[in-house]
Formats: sequence, structure tokens, C-alpha cells
Amino acid sequence: MKLVEQLAVQTDSKILLVVLDGLGGVPLRDKTELEAAWNPNLNALAARSGLGLLTPIEPGITPGSGPAHLALFGYDPIEYQVGRGVLEALGVGLELGPGDICCRANFATVAANGVIEDRRAGRIATDESAKLCERLQAAIPRIGDVEVIVRPGREHRFVVVFRGDDLVDGLSESDPLHEGVPALPVRPLSTDAEKSARVANEFVSRAAQVLNGEGRANFVLLRGLARLPNMPTMAERFRLNPACSAVYPMYRGLARLVGMRVLDAGQTWDSTVAAVREHRDEHDFFFMHFKEFDKAGEDGNFELKQELIERFDEEIVPQLLDLKFDVLCITGDHSTPAVMRGHSWHPVPLLLSSRYCRSQLRVEEFGERACARGVLGHVSSKTLMNLLLAHAGKLVKFGA
Amino acid sequence: MKLVEQLAVQTDSKILLVVLDGLGGVPLRDKTELEAAWNPNLNALAARSGLGLLTPIEPGITPGSGPAHLALFGYDPIEYQVGRGVLEALGVGLELGPGDICCRANFATVAANGVIEDRRAGRIATDESAKLCERLQAAIPRIGDVEVIVRPGREHRFVVVFRGDDLVDGLSESDPLHEGVPALPVRPLSTDAEKSARVANEFVSRAAQVLNGEGRANFVLLRGLARLPNMPTMAERFRLNPACSAVYPMYRGLARLVGMRVLDAGQTWDSTVAAVREHRDEHDFFFMHFKEFDKAGEDGNFELKQELIERFDEEIVPQLLDLKFDVLCITGDHSTPAVMRGHSWHPVPLLLSSRYCRSQLRVEEFGERACARGVLGHVSSKTLMNLLLAHAGKLVKFGA
Repeated sequence: MKLVEQLAVQTDSKILLVVLDGLGGVPLRDKTELEAAWNPNLNALAARSGLGLLTPIEPGITPGSGPAHLALFGYDPIEYQVGRGVLEALGVGLELGPGDICCRANFATVAANGVIEDRRAGRIATDESAKLCERLQAAIPRIGDVEVIVRPGREHRFVVVFRGDDLVDGLSESDPLHEGVPALPVRPLSTDAEKSARVANEFVSRAAQVLNGEGRANFVLLRGLARLPNMPTMAERFRLNPACSAVYPMYRGLARLVGMRVLDAGQTWDSTVAAVREHRDEHDFFFMHFKEFDKAGEDGNFELKQELIERFDEEIVPQLLDLKFDVLCITGDHSTPAVMRGHSWHPVPLLLSSRYCRSQLRVEEFGERACARGVLGHVSSKTLMNLLLAHAGKLVKFGA
Repeated sequence: MKLVEQLAVQTDSKILLVVLDGLGGVPLRDKTELEAAWNPNLNALAARSGLGLLTPIEPGITPGSGPAHLALFGYDPIEYQVGRGVLEALGVGLELGPGDICCRANFATVAANGVIEDRRAGRIATDESAKLCERLQAAIPRIGDVEVIVRPGREHRFVVVFRGDDLVDGLSESDPLHEGVPALPVRPLSTDAEKSARVANEFVSRAAQVLNGEGRANFVLLRGLARLPNMPTMAERFRLNPACSAVYPMYRGLARLVGMRVLDAGQTWDSTVAAVREHRDEHDFFFMHFKEFDKAGEDGNFELKQELIERFDEEIVPQLLDLKFDVLCITGDHSTPAVMRGHSWHPVPLLLSSRYCRSQLRVEEFGERACARGVLGHVSSKTLMNLLLAHAGKLVKFGA
């Protein structure tokens, strides 16, 4: 049991953790996206808050969204590694049992000779994909004693879950990650996993029969085959009653994994805030997620990322302040610098506002380099929860 | 297997790690050696680089050269402890086997009553010492079934290696580290090491017979008796093809220990750079070592250390920039403040230049206190390699 878990107590104070996905950047010309943005509200808040930089995993390590968020929730991402299939399954709202094998699946196009022509079946529309998922679900409800659950995702993506006895993970992927080669068989990485591999391979082969004759989506590829890890909840660990407001499935899935109640965040930034406002009295910890910064960074669109931050500053920050939480933390899960067109290892700007903050000398800006000189210093993401609980008065003294 | 090892991939990008031995300082009057120096090239580079401070081992811990360098190479210096005898043996170019016992040896002057009069035999000339080593080698080729290898070093220093079966380290030193007392017997620190101790003591006693009648160098003292530790190479751990350019044997030895190719660095700063220039296309990681700053610090010569830094700035930094590496890191292994006349625990200035750096706000200087406000923050030396690999694009993402 970690020290913070021994010291955590339930109180009435309230914490709001706001994650701007991929917030951190790298300078284009002279400034990062955040530094280039006109942010009067964030800057005013920064002047009276504690600033710092979060290291998501370790110096130099670029995280995916899964480990980056688990760290923010106070879970060591090296200790708790979650398979991608599990995250996808949670994201589409499936209630998982501990023995379920979850797969991230794609519709794909395969030529008559078995070679993959398009790993994404021409990125078929979400509607079309959903109909194909219905056909697969109807045609393959079970494989032997194993229940099969098929759920649609966005475009060519969907989720398959195998539910039954003696299913063990440790399975290779059928997606070769390249086109122009055949799909791979799912291989068990231990003898325990032989039944699971047999079920997965039979699903692929029966799906190909069901999809035979489809123009583009005539095959399925499986990735990230994994079971639900055994994770203690935030309630158990931190005596919190947490809730999540996030539009995107992946982040709702991550929140559910650590025992958060998943609110209906709608589809917009405003509805994401509204969900927290509506349920403000029912929980003492809220995780609010905004995705779009990461997408702009992944697309290499510096100006769009900058504009999104400015829009967030103007439209959302005043609403966050109006919610009057005891602790308000605004940060990112990782950096997604537009100049790198992807996630990066760079530490993430951290703003922590509470009545017990020290603020900086002569720093009146929320930006990477201002944060590098902040009073909170460099903080590992996995210890952020310590700081949030402490500033909310939710940790008792260690020792006498 | 550490996380960074799981994520490292081979790419074409190139890293240059430049170590100014003992770079860090402590102020005399108002500035450290580095801060007092006139460094237009380093300062211009600092303004567009990431700055930080390296903690060699742990806060407050003063390292020797061995652990300080291993940490820079990405090896936890607590986990991998290397005996001084091993470093010396590697430094003179010996190819060691895993069972060899290596000793750092001194010629010494012993009086007729057995008391040590001079632990360094008047610092006899290197030529004279080399001749004595030849005599020892010829007279003592073996001790029982154990091969004896004697190699000269600088001045009174030489290396002895015992090669044979059942040799185990964990041996005390024969050098009492004081004059006016007799030499000590080498004692085994475990019963396993009894044979090794017997061989070492017989070597000392037979060497004294060989040297009987010499005026000054009539005895030998043994220190740092140790075996080669079992270390994975940088190629295995980081997928690098590394090379070293260093004038001094100790640093070539450290580089060889982690699997670097040791280039012929000649005897000067210019030839040290030239070796890297010549072999630039053959490797993706270079370690370049400059020793003189440490010596000036050890001698308490603040002005000389300052002048050496200025000379480095003028003569070497432009050449380093001309080499056009993707990642250029200029730092030290530890601090050697002239005012302390020795190594110290003070964190070491770190400069990291790459196209993916954030740079500092309003910091346009390479110095200890500028680095304390740098965007990289305080970094443990053993995680520097993570940052070098990351900035070179040699680490894939962790998790999805």
C-alpha cells in the first residue's frame, strides 16, 4: 500500500482535474502553441496559482494516452499496463469481467490471394461499419462455449470481446501492420493462452465467411488482444467518489477502469462542462477531458492548436472558475507538439489553483517556459494526485 | 529490462555527448569558473538549447570518475560498480576475460625495516617505470597455474592482471594509503577469494625480490583489486553503435566497458575532435572526453580552469557545431570546484541542443545558475541517455 493511500481521508472538499489532451508543445519560431496563444484568463489564473511541469512517465519517454492518463489518476503506468483492446472495449461502454479477452478490430480489404490490400477497408463510414458489426454479431454469437460480443466504433474500427472460461491473454496480433502481406494467425505467447488463440483465429475465419462478397470490408484484423487488468479503484485507494466528463470513448474507458462514474458529456466542450455542473454536488473529484488539442498537434497544425487554446481560454476557463472547486488543476496528459506531428516526451505545463498555493515570483503566464520556473518544479505525473489531495486537505500527516 | 531498453530503436540520427571532466564549479567571489569565463559560442548555443543540471548519483553524493561516467552512459552506478583496477586495465588496452583479477599498482620506496618511505617511488619517469614493468613481467610470467600480466602506466603507476581458474574478487588492498607504515597483506573478504589473495601476496613478495637493489622503486603496492563486472553493452541496451574519443586511458576503459569502439584520439583536444570527424559516418553515438578542467580544479587553480573553458569555447565549440550532429550535449561528469580542490556533489551544467528543444525564457548564458533555471530542470545523470535518445528520435511510444 502506497503512502498516499494510507494517509487519504474523505472530506467535503472538491477537486477538478482538467486535461487538455496533448497540451504541451515545442517552439515554432520562438514560441510554443500555448505561449503563442492569447490567454488572458489562463494567464491571470497562472499569476495566482502554482505552476510546474509534469513528466508523464520518465524523462525522455513518450507515452500513449492510456499510460499518460493512468499516471494522472495516480496509477504507476509501469505497474498497471492496460492493453489497447481493453481501452477500446471500455470506451464503447462495455461492462467487462475479469476473464474477458478484448480486441481492437479493423475491417480490412483482402485480395483473392489472401494479401491485405487496405488495412482500413477504405475507412468505410461509421454507419456502414455498424451494419457489418450487426451481421457479425448475429452470425457469430458464440464460438464453442465462448460468448462473442461485437461492438462498432468509428469508421472501420470495432471491438470484439470473447467471454468464457479459461481465457488467458498473452496473444500476438493478426494485423501485420503493413499492406501487401497476408494477415498473421493469432499465436499464444504461453501454453495457457492456447484456447484464447484458437477462439480468436476461428472468429477471424468465420468473419471472413460472413463478409465474403463485400467489396471493401471483406476481412477483419485483430490487435491489442488483452484482459482487464486487476486495478484497485480510486475510491479504494484515495477515498474519493470520482466522476468523469469526456466526449471520447477512450477516456471514458480509462476513467471507468479506475472506478469513476462516467457522466454523459454530450459532444461539445460546453456539454462537457455542463455535465460537471449538473453533478457537482454528487462527487468530490471530477476528471474533465478535452481532446481537440491533441488532434491539431497530430495534424501538425500549429495555428489550429493555438486557436483552440485561445477558444478554451475564452469560453471554458470562466466556466471552470465559476464552478468554484477547492482545487482546480489544468494540465495535459502529454505533449503533442505540432512541429513533431505526434506525441512527445516533453514535460507538460501544470497549473494548480487552490487557496494553499504558493505562486511564482515575476511569472504571470501559463506556458511551458514559465512553468519550467514554477514553484511546483518538475513533478512525475503519477504523483500529481498526491498534490491534488494535499491541496484539498484530503491527506493526513505522516508520522507524529 | 528497463523501459528505455524496450523502446529503443536503431535510426540514422546521430548523438554527440561531450564531457568536460569536472566542469561544474562553486563561486569564487561572485562567479563559478564557467560563469566567469568569456564564452560567446557556448552562450549563443545555450540561448537556443535546453539547459538543466545533472545530479551524478544522488543529491549530496560526490562521485569518482567511474560511476559518474557510467551514469552518463545510462548505467545505474549503484547497480554497476566497477573496481578501479578494472578501469585501469581497460584503460591500458588490455582485453579482459570475466575471471581476471585486475590491480592498480604503484612502484614505491620501502626502507630496510619494511616501512614505506614513498608510496610513489619519487614519481619515477614513465620510461623508467616501463622498464621495471618489463623486468617484472619477464621474471614473474606465472604464479602456479595463474598467468600474470604486467603493463606500464604513467609515472609510477602500472597494472597487474591475474588470469586463471577460480579467481574471485573481494580483496583488501596492500597499499595502506599512508607513508611511515609497512604495506598490508592482501586479505580475502570471503573464503572464495583465498586463492586470489595468495596469488596477489606472492606477486608482491616476488616483485620485491626482483626490485631488490633498486634505489627508489624497490617495492609494489596493490589497490582496487577487482574483476570485470558483467555489463550489457550500449548496443544491446540502446540499439546504438557507439564510439569514444578520449585521450586518457581511464575514460577509454570506461567506454570499452559498455561496448564502445575506442577511437585513436591522439593527445590533444584537436585530435580528439578530429577522430570523431574522421569516423562520423561509422557510428550513431559518440562520447568525447576532455580532461583538463578536472585537473585544474583538483589543483585549486580557478584561473586556469576558467582559461581552459574559454579556450574550449573558442577552439572546440565551433568545431563541434560544424560536425552537425542531430543531438549535441555538452556537460560534465561531476563538479570539481577549484575552491574545493577536488570532486564535489554539486549538480553539473547540462546543455542539450536539438531541433526539438524548448529553450529558456530570458536565459542566454551557459552557467550553473542559468542551468538551474533551465527547461530541463534537475535530471539524474543516469536518465540523461533517455533524453539523448528521445531528442534523436530513437525511442518509440510507450503504450497506446
